[in-house]
Amino acid sequence: MPRSFVSKLPEPPYYAVIFPSQRSQNETGYRDVINRLIQTAMEQPGFLGMEAARGEDGFGIHVSYWESLEAFAAWSKATEVLVAQASGRDKWFDFYEVRIAKVERSIGLGTPR
Amino acid sequence: MPRSFVSKLPEPPYYAVIFPSQRSQNETGYRDVINRLIQTAMEQPGFLGMEAARGEDGFGIHVSYWESLEAFAAWSKATEVLVAQASGRDKWFDFYEVRIAKVERSIGLGTPR
Repeated sequence: MPRSFVSKLPEPPYYAVIFPSQRSQNETGYRDVINRLIQTAMEQPGFLGMEAARGEDGFGIHVSYWESLEAFAAWSKATEVLVAQASGRDKWFDFYEVRIAKVERSIGLGTPR
Repeated sequence: MPRSFVSKLPEPPYYAVIFPSQRSQNETGYRDVINRLIQTAMEQPGFLGMEAARGEDGFGIHVSYWESLEAFAAWSKATEVLVAQASGRDKWFDFYEVRIAKVERSIGLGTPR
């Protein structure tokens, strides 16, 4: 998966969904479902981008960015069946949390990626 | 650096400071300053924890968690000189941004780390 889909975020406010996770050893179906989740996000109105990093120890952080909570909720709903069918989360991750946050301020080099 | 200092976050709201970055090849002083930044954070009242992941491609995400914007601002101020003296950011990173966000909701397995 590409490390970042974020080309340019709008001025705040917008929403960030922070997903820290510890991968298990179970790879079954993981890549396929992740790719479909990303594909669905990219087709979702209000999706602004995603950043992801995972170290060799299997601990990773995904952050997806959304125009509104409604856009994120629509994506969650659209992918519910996908995740349920794969019954993936509990087998792919030893740990995860989802933290929904409103970005109030952004400071940076502004370097385009 | 440990992947996570988060043992248990309080119920929202609290603040998340999202720091995506692309490391340069320059390692001079990096580890030392990072360790001192973390040490200072851990001594800062209102610091709740930190999560970090960096992939082999050098793209990483740090997320630090804070009780209040004031706590984060106090840490920023306390470490300003440290970062300035090392004139580090622009040499250690090809890209970075700092996104300050208010966590409104948290959902998870609740697995302790």
